[in-house]
Amino acid sequence: MAESERGILLISCIDRPGIIARVAGQLFHLGCNIITSDQHTDDADGHFFWRIDFESRQLSLSEVAHNLTGNLPSLLTWEQLRWHLYDSSKQDRMVIMVSRLAHCMMDLLSRHRFGELEAEVVGVISNHPDLEPLARPFGVPFDVIPVTKDKKPQAEARLLERLTELNADTVVLARYMQVLSGDFLKKWRKPIVNIHHAFLPAFAGASPYRQAHDRGVKLIGATAHYVTEELDAGPIIAQATTPITHRDTIADLTRKGKDLEVIALAQAVRAHLHKQVLIHHNRTIVFE
Amino acid sequence: MAESERGILLISCIDRPGIIARVAGQLFHLGCNIITSDQHTDDADGHFFWRIDFESRQLSLSEVAHNLTGNLPSLLTWEQLRWHLYDSSKQDRMVIMVSRLAHCMMDLLSRHRFGELEAEVVGVISNHPDLEPLARPFGVPFDVIPVTKDKKPQAEARLLERLTELNADTVVLARYMQVLSGDFLKKWRKPIVNIHHAFLPAFAGASPYRQAHDRGVKLIGATAHYVTEELDAGPIIAQATTPITHRDTIADLTRKGKDLEVIALAQAVRAHLHKQVLIHHNRTIVFE
Amino acid sequence: MAESERGILLISCIDRPGIIARVAGQLFHLGCNIITSDQHTDDADGHFFWRIDFESRQLSLSEVAHNLTGNLPSLLTWEQLRWHLYDSSKQDRMVIMVSRLAHCMMDLLSRHRFGELEAEVVGVISNHPDLEPLARPFGVPFDVIPVTKDKKPQAEARLLERLTELNADTVVLARYMQVLSGDFLKKWRKPIVNIHHAFLPAFAGASPYRQAHDRGVKLIGATAHYVTEELDAGPIIAQATTPITHRDTIADLTRKGKDLEVIALAQAVRAHLHKQVLIHHNRTIVFE
Amino acid sequence: MAESERGILLISCIDRPGIIARVAGQLFHLGCNIITSDQHTDDADGHFFWRIDFESRQLSLSEVAHNLTGNLPSLLTWEQLRWHLYDSSKQDRMVIMVSRLAHCMMDLLSRHRFGELEAEVVGVISNHPDLEPLARPFGVPFDVIPVTKDKKPQAEARLLERLTELNADTVVLARYMQVLSGDFLKKWRKPIVNIHHAFLPAFAGASPYRQAHDRGVKLIGATAHYVTEELDAGPIIAQATTPITHRDTIADLTRKGKDLEVIALAQAVRAHLHKQVLIHHNRTIVFE
Repeated sequence: MAESERGILLISCIDRPGIIARVAGQLFHLGCNIITSDQHTDDADGHFFWRIDFESRQLSLSEVAHNLTGNLPSLLTWEQLRWHLYDSSKQDRMVIMVSRLAHCMMDLLSRHRFGELEAEVVGVISNHPDLEPLARPFGVPFDVIPVTKDKKPQAEARLLERLTELNADTVVLARYMQVLSGDFLKKWRKPIVNIHHAFLPAFAGASPYRQAHDRGVKLIGATAHYVTEELDAGPIIAQATTPITHRDTIADLTRKGKDLEVIALAQAVRAHLHKQVLIHHNRTIVFE
Repeated sequence: MAESERGILLISCIDRPGIIARVAGQLFHLGCNIITSDQHTDDADGHFFWRIDFESRQLSLSEVAHNLTGNLPSLLTWEQLRWHLYDSSKQDRMVIMVSRLAHCMMDLLSRHRFGELEAEVVGVISNHPDLEPLARPFGVPFDVIPVTKDKKPQAEARLLERLTELNADTVVLARYMQVLSGDFLKKWRKPIVNIHHAFLPAFAGASPYRQAHDRGVKLIGATAHYVTEELDAGPIIAQATTPITHRDTIADLTRKGKDLEVIALAQAVRAHLHKQVLIHHNRTIVFE
Repeated sequence: MAESERGILLISCIDRPGIIARVAGQLFHLGCNIITSDQHTDDADGHFFWRIDFESRQLSLSEVAHNLTGNLPSLLTWEQLRWHLYDSSKQDRMVIMVSRLAHCMMDLLSRHRFGELEAEVVGVISNHPDLEPLARPFGVPFDVIPVTKDKKPQAEARLLERLTELNADTVVLARYMQVLSGDFLKKWRKPIVNIHHAFLPAFAGASPYRQAHDRGVKLIGATAHYVTEELDAGPIIAQATTPITHRDTIADLTRKGKDLEVIALAQAVRAHLHKQVLIHHNRTIVFE
Repeated sequence: MAESERGILLISCIDRPGIIARVAGQLFHLGCNIITSDQHTDDADGHFFWRIDFESRQLSLSEVAHNLTGNLPSLLTWEQLRWHLYDSSKQDRMVIMVSRLAHCMMDLLSRHRFGELEAEVVGVISNHPDLEPLARPFGVPFDVIPVTKDKKPQAEARLLERLTELNADTVVLARYMQVLSGDFLKKWRKPIVNIHHAFLPAFAGASPYRQAHDRGVKLIGATAHYVTEELDAGPIIAQATTPITHRDTIADLTRKGKDLEVIALAQAVRAHLHKQVLIHHNRTIVFE
């Protein structure tokens, strides 16, 4: 092997003494050098989570994986170990979905262009054609899949087909204003990150800025989360808030909230792409 | 009159052209100088709110009030004007209510001692005797009114009696963990400020830090609001949030949240005492 | 006059009793209705500042201005009054200057496209051609004026000429990495807003993120300010900060700082364009 | 050994492959279970830092230390390893120093009383007697050591003597307004945490709120740092900022800043007491 390879190893198991010593020992034995290591133990059920960013200097990553497969199962029997090894040189294939508001899409495309996101953006899909001109200079295919009440199943079938064609790993709903059905989610089992324009669990559902204005809150928020079948109830990855006053109209909240949406979504997408996010009991562990 | 007097005039009315010119003209005519002036017009119903901090150089405040009474009614007929004149030299009589957690009480008593709150703290009332030693050095009477499920009406009657004896203007619930009944609120019609240890409307009711932990939010909050009959649903005066991570246990949230509670409550109490808070449709206008 | 006109009146003077009554009375007399009014009195020197957003229902704005010219001079003699009346229907002609980093330019062009900035963006000027493809879809002329050490005076002469051709009212330095000379500033006397990538006055000058990293601060910041002859020392309009940790490399600070730069600059530019910013003793009053 | 013991192991060394595997293996071999583990590698010089919070189930902590002493030196020869083992059951002896402003002292004493600080507060020392009544109810000795220009060396000698008598481990300057001389610092070599009422490095030295007001910043800050000979230039542990406006007078900044001082100092003191802070090149690593 001419050069070293870089990998990320995610591990979760029931915590028991020796897990760190064993895995670190095994990696050392295989000629791997740990660059960063983050761990967390759930205080309620004692579940243990570990993210290891490492460099393999003697073996290829597939050889490392093969070797771990041969050695870690002995742990597996008494530790309920689950692990996954990611090749850092392979980027996720990401699809951005959007409706008529451009700010989150523009921000993600810009960050991608600036080299901030470890992903290949393979497509933008919208239920409206409006934003195509803004996406075009970024050189990403822009597909329009209209959604009507009557023909939602057909639209979702087309969406599933298109995501499959694009071989997408990660889908980001960047102010995509259609609810994805449980049926769709059962078929498309890969991660979907959504931005909701409120500080969840407050103001779930439609028109959150109007809800926030009517309740008279003094801060507004945005929440990036994984999509699950229950609307706006999936594991939260990132949240942001900003102060508002009685002077702010719903239009002001909408404008100020855009900055929060952009920041929370970008932070969540980046963490997701870097394999920094693990899910446990509908909550996330974010190793930043 | 030997010296000038300082007053705060709060005005609300249906907005119509000329209101500023008329009232400012009237005050100028009476020899009053406007120090600060804050106004707000509700964008939904056009209601107009005005807070004027002024100095009267020729007339006493009661003469100013008398004069306004004589002159503003002509406005009243066509403007639905309501107004109130406060004497800045008279401080509210404030009662702090608390249960077993000291941080908000300690903070308010300290700020009062440091001269930050324009109030006379006339008493602390608790349903437990625990915090008396911490309150004692501040030289404020500490009353214990125990509350049991069976004898809540009696306890509330005693509370009402004590607040009346103390001639309280403002009551602050500084982590007082009993719900005041609708019956009590109907009898005690003066403002009550409460601190709720969550970012309302999320996590109303009991154990908000546990709720926040279970939902897996990435920010926690605190909300200071006026008490109304509906629990945790009164007009919000101030809110604060702080980031948390997956590492934070419920105990950590409880500890970190204390700082938010202290800050949001102090900000709300200060604004209330300075007559900076007006209420409109269950929302507050806070002139800071 | 068929329709009402909307204007903004900025006033500053030595504070004296009656100023509000007189000006409000005058506007009322002219058939103008005050929509929002913000005032401030400097606590050190007693200077008074007033921003009035109003609607004129009977007279055109030029008639209002003419009338004020006729009536306010009597105040002028004893109050040192200065005032300016802006027509809200006339937008500033704004030029964005940029070097190689796109984020601030992209953000301003996007916000302009989304209708958030009350300006006509009449040009982008850069000392490098790199960002032209990103600016192009926004339909704004992109000029390249290279700057070399030897020929800086010639470059600034060309810049002055181009800004004059474009009839620019406001120039925004959106990460333009050349220092504008005192000579240039003396010739171009209109407002220039700059974004500095640090929490001024800390880390003025070059490489602020490196400076911040070396000092080991736990927060980084960004500062939007008016450009004056002294580098990074002009009146501050907006600032933002975000927490960092020991884990953040200079590259991380640079990336995280971009979000702050974008937000502080957009906030400052928006306030400037809305005539919400007044300058007094190298400090700003920002009526938001 | 009847019960398990809890310890914190801090390690720093030149990073080389295998360090994690070796130390984790050694701890496992000794019957220790790692509870939390945090590591950091300096991106400039490759120095490695590790904090291990562990439980020893078979050996006492002194046996663990003895064993590590016997085994880690072999690493030491080629890794430049330095390590320290803390017994989590032993609390630091902490002395609070204060002048005339009570807020930071009150906050630390309150947090200590609430069980938030892992320390024994063994004394308060002030150069003024003013705050003694506020400290008294917390049951901590309050010493007054006046400092005059003429007799500063004598005062510092007395201070040194008193800190030695109290056997202090950690000194916290909670708005102690005297500068400790280089001579004193050379003699008292244990950690001193100070709160500076500004966002360092901006506004070092005297009257930072006045400096901030005069510069016209839009955010104020507070900085908790270790004291070194160069004034306000020691390693920063925690910082906080809050927005301000043109309306805020120096008195307002002073009041608003108090909340920042309290929060930044408490956060820093807590991290310090939990052995979460390591110093490298005048910068801190804070494992939170």
